[in-house]
Amino acid sequence: QEIQKDSIVKNKIDIKYTDKGFQFKTSDNKHLLHIESRLQFRFATPGDENPLTFDDIYPTSNTVFKINRARLKIGGHAFTPDLKYYFEYELSQSNLLDFRLMFEKWKGFHIKVGQWKTYYSRERIISSGKQQMVDRSIINRPFTLDRQQGISFYGRLFEESPADLTYHLSLLTGTGRGSTENDDNRLMYVGRLQWNFLGREVSMSGSDLKHVTKPEALIALAAATNTSPYTRFSQSGGGQLEGFQDGVSGQYTVNQGLIETAFKYKGFSWQSEVHHKTIFDNVNDTETHLRGMYVQAGYFFSNIFDFVPEPLEVAGRFGYYNPNIEIKQDLEEEFGLAFNWFFNGHRNKLTTEFTYFQIQSYNVIEPSDGLRFRVQWDISL
Amino acid sequence: QEIQKDSIVKNKIDIKYTDKGFQFKTSDNKHLLHIESRLQFRFATPGDENPLTFDDIYPTSNTVFKINRARLKIGGHAFTPDLKYYFEYELSQSNLLDFRLMFEKWKGFHIKVGQWKTYYSRERIISSGKQQMVDRSIINRPFTLDRQQGISFYGRLFEESPADLTYHLSLLTGTGRGSTENDDNRLMYVGRLQWNFLGREVSMSGSDLKHVTKPEALIALAAATNTSPYTRFSQSGGGQLEGFQDGVSGQYTVNQGLIETAFKYKGFSWQSEVHHKTIFDNVNDTETHLRGMYVQAGYFFSNIFDFVPEPLEVAGRFGYYNPNIEIKQDLEEEFGLAFNWFFNGHRNKLTTEFTYFQIQSYNVIEPSDGLRFRVQWDISL
Amino acid sequence: QEIQKDSIVKNKIDIKYTDKGFQFKTSDNKHLLHIESRLQFRFATPGDENPLTFDDIYPTSNTVFKINRARLKIGGHAFTPDLKYYFEYELSQSNLLDFRLMFEKWKGFHIKVGQWKTYYSRERIISSGKQQMVDRSIINRPFTLDRQQGISFYGRLFEESPADLTYHLSLLTGTGRGSTENDDNRLMYVGRLQWNFLGREVSMSGSDLKHVTKPEALIALAAATNTSPYTRFSQSGGGQLEGFQDGVSGQYTVNQGLIETAFKYKGFSWQSEVHHKTIFDNVNDTETHLRGMYVQAGYFFSNIFDFVPEPLEVAGRFGYYNPNIEIKQDLEEEFGLAFNWFFNGHRNKLTTEFTYFQIQSYNVIEPSDGLRFRVQWDISL
Repeated sequence: QEIQKDSIVKNKIDIKYTDKGFQFKTSDNKHLLHIESRLQFRFATPGDENPLTFDDIYPTSNTVFKINRARLKIGGHAFTPDLKYYFEYELSQSNLLDFRLMFEKWKGFHIKVGQWKTYYSRERIISSGKQQMVDRSIINRPFTLDRQQGISFYGRLFEESPADLTYHLSLLTGTGRGSTENDDNRLMYVGRLQWNFLGREVSMSGSDLKHVTKPEALIALAAATNTSPYTRFSQSGGGQLEGFQDGVSGQYTVNQGLIETAFKYKGFSWQSEVHHKTIFDNVNDTETHLRGMYVQAGYFFSNIFDFVPEPLEVAGRFGYYNPNIEIKQDLEEEFGLAFNWFFNGHRNKLTTEFTYFQIQSYNVIEPSDGLRFRVQWDISL
Repeated sequence: QEIQKDSIVKNKIDIKYTDKGFQFKTSDNKHLLHIESRLQFRFATPGDENPLTFDDIYPTSNTVFKINRARLKIGGHAFTPDLKYYFEYELSQSNLLDFRLMFEKWKGFHIKVGQWKTYYSRERIISSGKQQMVDRSIINRPFTLDRQQGISFYGRLFEESPADLTYHLSLLTGTGRGSTENDDNRLMYVGRLQWNFLGREVSMSGSDLKHVTKPEALIALAAATNTSPYTRFSQSGGGQLEGFQDGVSGQYTVNQGLIETAFKYKGFSWQSEVHHKTIFDNVNDTETHLRGMYVQAGYFFSNIFDFVPEPLEVAGRFGYYNPNIEIKQDLEEEFGLAFNWFFNGHRNKLTTEFTYFQIQSYNVIEPSDGLRFRVQWDISL
Repeated sequence: QEIQKDSIVKNKIDIKYTDKGFQFKTSDNKHLLHIESRLQFRFATPGDENPLTFDDIYPTSNTVFKINRARLKIGGHAFTPDLKYYFEYELSQSNLLDFRLMFEKWKGFHIKVGQWKTYYSRERIISSGKQQMVDRSIINRPFTLDRQQGISFYGRLFEESPADLTYHLSLLTGTGRGSTENDDNRLMYVGRLQWNFLGREVSMSGSDLKHVTKPEALIALAAATNTSPYTRFSQSGGGQLEGFQDGVSGQYTVNQGLIETAFKYKGFSWQSEVHHKTIFDNVNDTETHLRGMYVQAGYFFSNIFDFVPEPLEVAGRFGYYNPNIEIKQDLEEEFGLAFNWFFNGHRNKLTTEFTYFQIQSYNVIEPSDGLRFRVQWDISL
């Protein structure tokens, strides 16, 4: 009879609704599956995209109402809680974004294989569903490594001590999302060292929704090198920045680095990144230097003013991008102001955003400028 | 101990198999998810498509056996039973068909955002899995608004009274399924007013499977206006009717309207639509008027003849379409006869259908005609 | 009160984690759903593909790390345990691979409709997740019928007797995966007769993981005929073998046949196929004969040597392909050696493989040759 009982217990599945959607778990915790979907609706006027050049600042109005993201997310673990997996599929474009397996037995040394958002810059790593503004800053496009395929080693060392470190070392094909083969045998190498100098990690999501009572902070350095036909990466794979022609195998060698900070405390959140990138064109033997940075901060003013409703956060961002540092006048700036209303944290929120752009061109005295207004509803189901 | 008990109850999930597939619900009913798939197999000879022109009536035999639809459907509600969601993905074409969120707190005023089949004509709104014939009539192609992106306000007023009304008011991009931006700032506007004059709504599915004992009836009016590059819409997005060239932004202004009736009672079902559509070509300054209609009826003869098996329904349809009302001879007609065998209602049914087409051409005296035979198995899993 | 009890029982769903992933079953067993995903990661050097011609043997190194398969699998039964269904979707390519419904009420006569891997040759039928080597042999490409749409009748007769037979008779469109229409009215016909002469079927998976204590064996004959624009089939649909031009409707009539053997006993597994294929080009009036074969065997040496770990299997393969038997020198050979480490049977395994290729060309005296190394991790989640 005892045996009978055991076998029943074995087959029993625990089901819960969690912050990753419905979750199914075997009672021995060997297998777990969670399934979630996410929709992001966006209204933007006079246009949605960040302007890329002087002439790009909304020459014609193109008001947009669209589904910006429709994601299906499946994750969990298999055979042991240490072997985790995760898929993310973009339903509206029919793109497989993430597929990865993580072996996380030892806290100081984890291994990941598959395709995912390269652990390089905070802004890009934070899920589009957990952002503080409607979307990423103007510097994301030129500097992000986006999703790549490969292997990564990472972990956290000296936890809760003043030397608390989180490291990521990645060997990637460097040919972007959806590519099935590397173009040559030269890989992308990425390293990131994050010093959690208060002994606590800053969570990888925008806004301090938890109003943490002990301050969290980080300073991070990251660097990457890659040789490929591409000068930039996005969800659609490898591509070219303005002024670069379609490349052949190994045409562009890109070296880049960043300094990043982040901080959260009692409803206040801060983050910043300073980027530098050098592109060597191995065919035409030219060299271009790009520079950019942003700072971003937000606060729940209900903490100091009683009349402010609790679900409301106000956030601002300043971004700066110079596509070629030898041309001083070639300069793009972004000033953003956002109001978030968190119905249920990041899982159901409404964001209203105003952005002012100013773009200088090297051959014109007066800069071009423009204002954009966006409203976004992001909901996880 | 009381608290412990509560927390257990909170996590409990109710699971059921429903007519929308397997369903998972938190015990507080705040979150619900149902998942279902549907397959539709079709055999057709001498061809599957409705003929579009005089020369199109099956010039060569092209017998077809195919998967016509393979759908994955995920729906439910999140955070509150009033906030509903629904996705539909066509697996064989990798197309995201439906994505929508509905806020249905007040019966008289609901809101919907996303992409879905525009609430315009009954024939198109009825799911392809709940049709009475194998597929829609010859007038669906020229007159349907198909799926669009946007926002809709709808509700039911004066319920169960003689003034019982169902209304739908939609603001849509008017550029069809899968488009991410509107072509200009001119939207598609659609209104529909449905008078349920017996105080009961007619369910949005073909055949009176429930053998309703109280008659259900409706008379509806609907109208739409849109300016876009397109003269018709289908699952693959915007396109052109015969005789219209590929359009530029805002080339075609389309105004259209319909009168619709439907009725169900004791196994008998009836529905009809009369359509008119005017296409202004703003580039070439021409105007075309299109007209079409169909009537369709079905009955379970087991209600009057003992020898007829209960799962069998017989249905017939007459359709008529004039692509240009200034040319009287330019006329298409459809006469259909279908036999449905409902193994498990619409969720598992076999349909056998005979259709006779007759198409007149303005420059030929004798009309062209042809016969088509189709068998279809539709099953929800 | 009795009624209440019944209705509760009816709604109860049994949930289990099975070797097909999480499984949901109504307590009356009328409806069942299982959902599983599978990832296959592959590293290959100097290249992944089998060489096709003399010049193809890795002229340049193209080391590959890639996701080779990312599958979502949904199956179960609906309305009755006899009506089974199965879907398989390739997430990384957004391809619907399998969709099929099986009516399996009578053991001797089953019916299947939809799209699936044609029951023709053992090597192709075995799922890519249950192979003994990293992938199929060099003869799979020229001889496989791959996935087709249509209907199949199959069953097992005289079970457990010396006349134990498994038969498959298929009527297919013969235009490959993803096609929605046949090109003409000429279908593909496939027959397969498998004699299980020891009264037990050999399971359709590589390696004898169960160490079966009673020997299992089969001898099978299969034949197929098809007229279509294609000379070969693969996951991307119909295509052409080397030396054949793109075809028009009905250009190529292909007749082919095979003899197959398989055997499993106490950790030892064997399988072989001998193929012949004749291609008639109905346009150019030419005829080509192709021949190929492979033998493959594996063993768990832990059965005889104590020092060998139990999860380790060693397997070898020899393959031979002549693309045109009138040219004797036109010959391709494959010698493979693989080491499997089964963490959890086929559901989580690591395979290391060495392959030596030798290709002769009719106009060169010395054959070209090359060595390939591959490592693969295949995991079902």
